[in-house]
Amino acid sequence: MTDRTKSAAEQQAREEALVAEVLASFDNTPDDRLRELLQHLVRYVHDFIRETRLTEKEWSQAIDFLTAVGHITDDRRQEFILLSDTLGASMQTIAVNNAACADATEATVFGPYFVTDAPHVDLGGDISGGASGEPCWVEGTVTDTDGNPVADARMDIWEADDDGFYDVQYDDDRVAGRAWLTSDQNGEYRFWAVTPTPYPIPHDGPVGAMLAATKRSPVRAAHLHFMVTAPHRRTLVTHIFVSGDDYLTQDSVFGVKRSLVKDFVRQLPGTPTPDGRDLGDRTWSRVRFDIVLAPAAV
Amino acid sequence: MTDRTKSAAEQQAREEALVAEVLASFDNTPDDRLRELLQHLVRYVHDFIRETRLTEKEWSQAIDFLTAVGHITDDRRQEFILLSDTLGASMQTIAVNNAACADATEATVFGPYFVTDAPHVDLGGDISGGASGEPCWVEGTVTDTDGNPVADARMDIWEADDDGFYDVQYDDDRVAGRAWLTSDQNGEYRFWAVTPTPYPIPHDGPVGAMLAATKRSPVRAAHLHFMVTAPHRRTLVTHIFVSGDDYLTQDSVFGVKRSLVKDFVRQLPGTPTPDGRDLGDRTWSRVRFDIVLAPAAV
Repeated sequence: MTDRTKSAAEQQAREEALVAEVLASFDNTPDDRLRELLQHLVRYVHDFIRETRLTEKEWSQAIDFLTAVGHITDDRRQEFILLSDTLGASMQTIAVNNAACADATEATVFGPYFVTDAPHVDLGGDISGGASGEPCWVEGTVTDTDGNPVADARMDIWEADDDGFYDVQYDDDRVAGRAWLTSDQNGEYRFWAVTPTPYPIPHDGPVGAMLAATKRSPVRAAHLHFMVTAPHRRTLVTHIFVSGDDYLTQDSVFGVKRSLVKDFVRQLPGTPTPDGRDLGDRTWSRVRFDIVLAPAAV
Repeated sequence: MTDRTKSAAEQQAREEALVAEVLASFDNTPDDRLRELLQHLVRYVHDFIRETRLTEKEWSQAIDFLTAVGHITDDRRQEFILLSDTLGASMQTIAVNNAACADATEATVFGPYFVTDAPHVDLGGDISGGASGEPCWVEGTVTDTDGNPVADARMDIWEADDDGFYDVQYDDDRVAGRAWLTSDQNGEYRFWAVTPTPYPIPHDGPVGAMLAATKRSPVRAAHLHFMVTAPHRRTLVTHIFVSGDDYLTQDSVFGVKRSLVKDFVRQLPGTPTPDGRDLGDRTWSRVRFDIVLAPAAV
């Protein structure tokens, strides 16, 4: 062996010995699943460093990046979720936990803007709570994968206003653009919201810097959030998207699925509304979203 | 195809399409290396989620963990570095950037306690600056891989006191247990320090919780830090460890290399010191560390 070959063999042995040593350090983890996750993580982290030949400067930049992500994160701003979202990790987690099941409606990202104490509205009510935007009538059915109506499904709905902000992003404790309601005995539902519009995710932080450095857009395709829960059914967290939206093919968090793109049909001023609501000279839109819930995991 | 097979195929297609979509989103990154790193990262993150079938609860726990790591990190406490260290990621980065090269001294982790403005001491001086601990005489040579002495090598030395704390971990702005000096014209060096003792890394935060949950010790094997720089030589960041230390086989950051374990020979009270220093009735120790610097990368 030449000196160079010898050094290369020694180097490979050192790197592999280190991986083995780190893996072994987790062998006594009492919780089997935690051990499995951490040992997988160790393998991937070490493979990443070895395959990319990560430099010490790059390692240091990664530490600084994560530190900045940590420091901008507070009760209102969750930059780690934004990071997970913009790497598609959130969407992949959703994917593996919502396995394709007959014609069950596809899931998509949860996002950081859900709150647990949203107000209740009756069927046909308005979830906008004063959020600015064009009124939008949303209606559809909730059924199971056999086509049976799901009555009394709890439907949590939330969305940004047409300035691109969720209520919790304002400083004034407003509650707007969110509510929950339940499907009726035929599995039908209906409510007023505002027509969704595209908006950027917060991009004045380190995740925004990553998007800029990679020439990616921070914009999310326009969408309306749904979370639908019913006994014996898998909880569905999803959005519907707006057909024709320019951002459908470049959604910053990879949430768009073709099956979730719906026609939001614009209505001229004066067009009679389904419930007789008087919208004066405003345009409005209407959309239909029929939801199919998978069975709960057995 | 049965419905089940069809759904399984559809599921796999969805997951793979998502990975492809995320990878493609980075295609326009102007910096080639950044694109390479991010696309590798995306592959590993998605493989991790898909192979472990990460649950949404586990994803959420990971977000909470990272958030806690971010929030405990400040100017004095760097929990992301601790995390990297305890996963062996720091040590693997060191390994790939300090390729084995003839008999060049092995590198090990840098750690978070180096500071750039440490005081200078003359050869034979005391780097302890009043840090508590048993006096320790350290001496050796700095040579290149051909055995030639390296004169005027800058040697930065730092260590914890025998309570297990570095100066920067105290609130009183003390400077102790750190200094720099230079090798003489024969490549020789000598200085007083304190005999290293094992100490735990900060373990009252999320990284400590991970170590506890996995039955790992937070303790670092006793060590003395060196950073050695000289023109045309690869900078060496390393430690020496104390032969016989119980923690050599369970160092919490995987820094121990057999070649770096040295005999710190304990001296009885009254044993004459190399430089005539009067230590009264105290024990002291002495250790020899001959350093071999690799050539700088060409």
